[in-house]
Amino acid sequence: MEKLMLYLSILISLVAFAFAGWLFLWVKRQPSDNPIIAKNGGLIRQGARTFLRKEYTVLARFALVAAVLILILLPSPIWKGNIINNVLMAVSYLMGTAFSAIAGLIGIEVATIANVKAAEAAKSGIKPSFMAGFRGGAVMGMAVVGASLLGVTIVYLLTGDATTVLGFSFGASSLAMFAKAGGGIFTKTADISADLVGKVELGIPEDDPRNPAVIADNVGDNVGDVAGMGADLFDSNVASMAAALVLAGSIDKEKFGTNISMVFCFAALGLLASVIGVMTARIGKKGSPTRALNSSTYVTTGVYIVLTAAATAIFKFNWRIWLACIVGLLVGVVIGITTDYFTDDKKKPVKMVAKASGIGPAFTILSGISYGLLSVLPAMLGIGVSALAAYKLCESIDPALALEYSMFGISMAAVGMLSIVGMIVSNDAYGPIVDNARGLAEMGNLGEDVIEITDELDSAGNTVKAVTKGFAISAAGLTVISLLGAFMSEVNIAAAELGIKGIENFDIMNPLVFFGLLIGAAIPAVFSAMLILGVDRNAQRLVAEIHRQFREIVGLKEGKEGVEPEYDKCITIATTGAMKELIPAGLTAIIATLVVGFVGGVQAIGGFLCGNIISGLLLALFMSNSGGLWDNSKKYVEAGNEGGKGSPAHKAAVVGDTVGDPFKDTAGPSINTQITVVSLVASLMSTLFLTLSLFG
Amino acid sequence: MEKLMLYLSILISLVAFAFAGWLFLWVKRQPSDNPIIAKNGGLIRQGARTFLRKEYTVLARFALVAAVLILILLPSPIWKGNIINNVLMAVSYLMGTAFSAIAGLIGIEVATIANVKAAEAAKSGIKPSFMAGFRGGAVMGMAVVGASLLGVTIVYLLTGDATTVLGFSFGASSLAMFAKAGGGIFTKTADISADLVGKVELGIPEDDPRNPAVIADNVGDNVGDVAGMGADLFDSNVASMAAALVLAGSIDKEKFGTNISMVFCFAALGLLASVIGVMTARIGKKGSPTRALNSSTYVTTGVYIVLTAAATAIFKFNWRIWLACIVGLLVGVVIGITTDYFTDDKKKPVKMVAKASGIGPAFTILSGISYGLLSVLPAMLGIGVSALAAYKLCESIDPALALEYSMFGISMAAVGMLSIVGMIVSNDAYGPIVDNARGLAEMGNLGEDVIEITDELDSAGNTVKAVTKGFAISAAGLTVISLLGAFMSEVNIAAAELGIKGIENFDIMNPLVFFGLLIGAAIPAVFSAMLILGVDRNAQRLVAEIHRQFREIVGLKEGKEGVEPEYDKCITIATTGAMKELIPAGLTAIIATLVVGFVGGVQAIGGFLCGNIISGLLLALFMSNSGGLWDNSKKYVEAGNEGGKGSPAHKAAVVGDTVGDPFKDTAGPSINTQITVVSLVASLMSTLFLTLSLFG
Repeated sequence: MEKLMLYLSILISLVAFAFAGWLFLWVKRQPSDNPIIAKNGGLIRQGARTFLRKEYTVLARFALVAAVLILILLPSPIWKGNIINNVLMAVSYLMGTAFSAIAGLIGIEVATIANVKAAEAAKSGIKPSFMAGFRGGAVMGMAVVGASLLGVTIVYLLTGDATTVLGFSFGASSLAMFAKAGGGIFTKTADISADLVGKVELGIPEDDPRNPAVIADNVGDNVGDVAGMGADLFDSNVASMAAALVLAGSIDKEKFGTNISMVFCFAALGLLASVIGVMTARIGKKGSPTRALNSSTYVTTGVYIVLTAAATAIFKFNWRIWLACIVGLLVGVVIGITTDYFTDDKKKPVKMVAKASGIGPAFTILSGISYGLLSVLPAMLGIGVSALAAYKLCESIDPALALEYSMFGISMAAVGMLSIVGMIVSNDAYGPIVDNARGLAEMGNLGEDVIEITDELDSAGNTVKAVTKGFAISAAGLTVISLLGAFMSEVNIAAAELGIKGIENFDIMNPLVFFGLLIGAAIPAVFSAMLILGVDRNAQRLVAEIHRQFREIVGLKEGKEGVEPEYDKCITIATTGAMKELIPAGLTAIIATLVVGFVGGVQAIGGFLCGNIISGLLLALFMSNSGGLWDNSKKYVEAGNEGGKGSPAHKAAVVGDTVGDPFKDTAGPSINTQITVVSLVASLMSTLFLTLSLFG
Repeated sequence: MEKLMLYLSILISLVAFAFAGWLFLWVKRQPSDNPIIAKNGGLIRQGARTFLRKEYTVLARFALVAAVLILILLPSPIWKGNIINNVLMAVSYLMGTAFSAIAGLIGIEVATIANVKAAEAAKSGIKPSFMAGFRGGAVMGMAVVGASLLGVTIVYLLTGDATTVLGFSFGASSLAMFAKAGGGIFTKTADISADLVGKVELGIPEDDPRNPAVIADNVGDNVGDVAGMGADLFDSNVASMAAALVLAGSIDKEKFGTNISMVFCFAALGLLASVIGVMTARIGKKGSPTRALNSSTYVTTGVYIVLTAAATAIFKFNWRIWLACIVGLLVGVVIGITTDYFTDDKKKPVKMVAKASGIGPAFTILSGISYGLLSVLPAMLGIGVSALAAYKLCESIDPALALEYSMFGISMAAVGMLSIVGMIVSNDAYGPIVDNARGLAEMGNLGEDVIEITDELDSAGNTVKAVTKGFAISAAGLTVISLLGAFMSEVNIAAAELGIKGIENFDIMNPLVFFGLLIGAAIPAVFSAMLILGVDRNAQRLVAEIHRQFREIVGLKEGKEGVEPEYDKCITIATTGAMKELIPAGLTAIIATLVVGFVGGVQAIGGFLCGNIISGLLLALFMSNSGGLWDNSKKYVEAGNEGGKGSPAHKAAVVGDTVGDPFKDTAGPSINTQITVVSLVASLMSTLFLTLSLFG
């Protein structure tokens, strides 16, 4: 097959970009004429750009420092190895950050147009409004998967080296950490501060334009959920491909062998399936948006199974590996559905938390935490079962390469789980677009009927979001398991080059491994705590600024004609603060990896990564699910249950929702990116950890 | 040395019992004459007895079923192995439950006398009141350690078999799970229900005798903190000895070899050091009770170091193992001190949480959770460092037995950490005694001065409690690491008997191990969630009963002379409910172990135990510390900070405290017992898992 698959990958990425371009133009063509919506929409777009500019500036500095370190130290120290490898690695790293950043930019640009279009389209009914929101989101979906596939393919085509792809992946995950954690701090800072001063202190409504933080709040939805989630899944998608390539490379002798081709082929077909899934998304005049979103996901899944089976038959790939891939995909869907159980307002957990809220806020918290902890089990079980099944399916392919094939099987299960990522990102980006559309419709006084339509679209977005979040975390979980395999493979390549003994296992009974396990498990706890405390500190700064504006800008509080708050100052403060709070948390994770590696060597790092994955998955699932649960319980009470709006149960449910906000939008989903960053740092540093460590 | 050390152990246990008897008589001799206190004290004692009777009845049924299963199945299935072994194992198991139960009974009897004495003694000043509280607690401390040492020694002396000691340990941990989790559900049920109806609905004060749940609330302190914590540390102490004996047995050829002798010797010296520590506890007329409690802990530590060094020199034990033991002890003390940082009201976390409470309850929760998550790191680091140090110290003792010696080193570090457990239990049981004394002083109208004294004693109890909780969790952590080693050793003994290949490692890259890791990590989350939800459900039942009494008993609400609520009904309902809620949680953990074992075999169980330890430690530390933090933040606000009592900050801090209650007193510390139960089930079932499993 030689390079056929790589060219095919590039071709399909370009198809995805072309499709994204068509969708973009379609969205842009939709009518809009309301001047208030246009103005506010413009402010949101400006704000989002301000945030991204600032974020990318800080990131660029970080990335440059990292690139220089990579140039000097990796894959081997420059004074020991081949300088060309180091240059390629540094360039590949920078490409990873750049490709992810470009996908994020595209997504934000279209999302901040689509929100206006969806708001205005709601005047003509649910169908056009849904299509504007969904197609706007789909641009992001196509851009994310297109860019990740294109990037990985180019790097591999130019270097033929899977390790260099890990560098690209590290670039993607550095950006994801900034985008997800930084965006997460920004969005919750703005949300909490706007509510605290607006709703609580002054008693003005949610999206009141007098509130200086109102635009920042709307910007937050976009940078957190569109750019952040996009970068997160870009990261997972690239990491799953990178790990699969490293592990395929441990089997294939040639650079374009069967298994390597299979990785590209299956990733490309996932993108193709997503394109088809997006194209089939339709909603009847009175149809349900939730059903439309879900059915296009199922279409994508079905198409993917058929396409990969055909490819396996045509290109004579191994059927067992195909099956491992499909197991991953199906388990991903099942995990999504079980996550839904814990956050669906028709199911027991949401109702019980709403009921507990009647007793008081402490019971809202206790029951929400309890169900959040319970929700961990099905996902962990699913990840465990799919990894075990993939391993067992593939270990018998070649007895001489049992470990290699079985680890490759796991990595292909992760590729399978992530194959529908284009669809997932589309659905996810749809959420903030219609959420914004609802706000804009309210600001533009489009009337009750229109708001009712946007409300329905928004509610579908929330339901789907909970499912995609569970999916994203599980996919990251399976990906990092294969990254652990990639780490071991990297260590052995390095050991072979150095002529020293490689490693055969990470034994729990080895105290270095156990030491690493304990520290690795503590890091996600510390990381998420630092982010939550960061939101808190940042919100204090922003509240002070809002107070200042209400105090100093004459006529603002009274809503005097022509008087406007300084929206941009709030955005700047929230942005600067978010970056300031993010960096110590990110560095803590990276420095802990280095300390453990240089103290305990590769064995300790093996344990460290494992502990990090285990506790990271636990905390990420717990936080995301309990956050979603509290959010929906509050909405359930607001819908008139347990006393409805203004009742004691409602007040308690609001407390739950406020606790849940940084759980589900800041800390929980950022843990994903922390795990991949740490895993990739470990893989890239493997040579150094192997040669320079205190006890290893 | 032959059996010298075993006779010495028995002798020292008897000394401890004699000392406990002397302390008991001393406490009983203290004067008391207030009839109201006598009456209420009697009610508390009766209530505690009711709870224990019910608990022990349920436990007895559980233990009988377990003993029958052991008789049929363990160590080998009765139709394959030697029936004598199975009988010994079943008897040893029952002894484990009985010894622990007796220690609990003794502790409760004296604690419910000492609370009355401490209340009355406060009339003569802080010194006699402190002594009554402390010596009352010390009876429990001596009984716990005396019974655990005596039981282990008798079992080993009779059978000469370390595996049978694991059976004794399993008995102790079954009881601990009931005592800790059941007592934890009981105490929080009573606490929350009494507060909800009394303080919130009716606005009557905390310890008002009209409240039907007031006695249950006071009983709860005793059964949760005296009996529960005692059983928990009895369990850890026995488990650390059992694991050390199994691992020493893998080195020593004879049944009374040097290393086995060392285990008994060092455990006995720990008890002796605690006796000396208790004897030196003194407080000046105006002295600080906190300092008195801490200084006697330091005395115990110092005495232990000297005694064990002398023993090592005299009996020619290995100095490296001695050092491993001392490292464990010192790290335990350091972990206690860092835990204190997170819960001390003079340090940043408590102050920051109190400040955050000014913004609203959501911020109390968010900041408390964040600091709770941060607090995990030092303890995990400490456990990791001590395990690593012990391993590295001991692996070079005999190159042919490197793994055996290093695992034995870790188990001796656990023995070292637990050597001061007599002192720890004494300090811990002191807390509820003086807490009750405060309540009794209030009920008996002993006046402001007396209440001030009991307040000071109570506050010292709270400070020390936070430290001992961190210590208990860490000690359990180190113990279960050595239990993991014991499990491996058991598997290999079984494999040798069956003539099949044993295991050399638990490799993280083995998918069975990884599968086990994921499931094992989810179990503590599920277990703690079930307990918290259990408290919630149980509280609803009790609230209904309190409402019924206020409705049906004429004159109760008005406080009519001679009208009394039916205290015992509340106690019965809380007790029955606690047992009902506990059993599914406990069974879930045990059944998960069996399923994983029979599906994935011993490799999966290795991973399962490891995942269980890691996530169990994480959640236990997080929950205990954030719970303690919220409790002290509330007290800090009540002391007049951030607006003081009745301020919005106070209301928010109360929400935090209510969330923290089941965290720190139900779920958090029960996770310990869940981990040991699961570890011991795994060790005892090793033969079955080895021979009967789907994939193993």
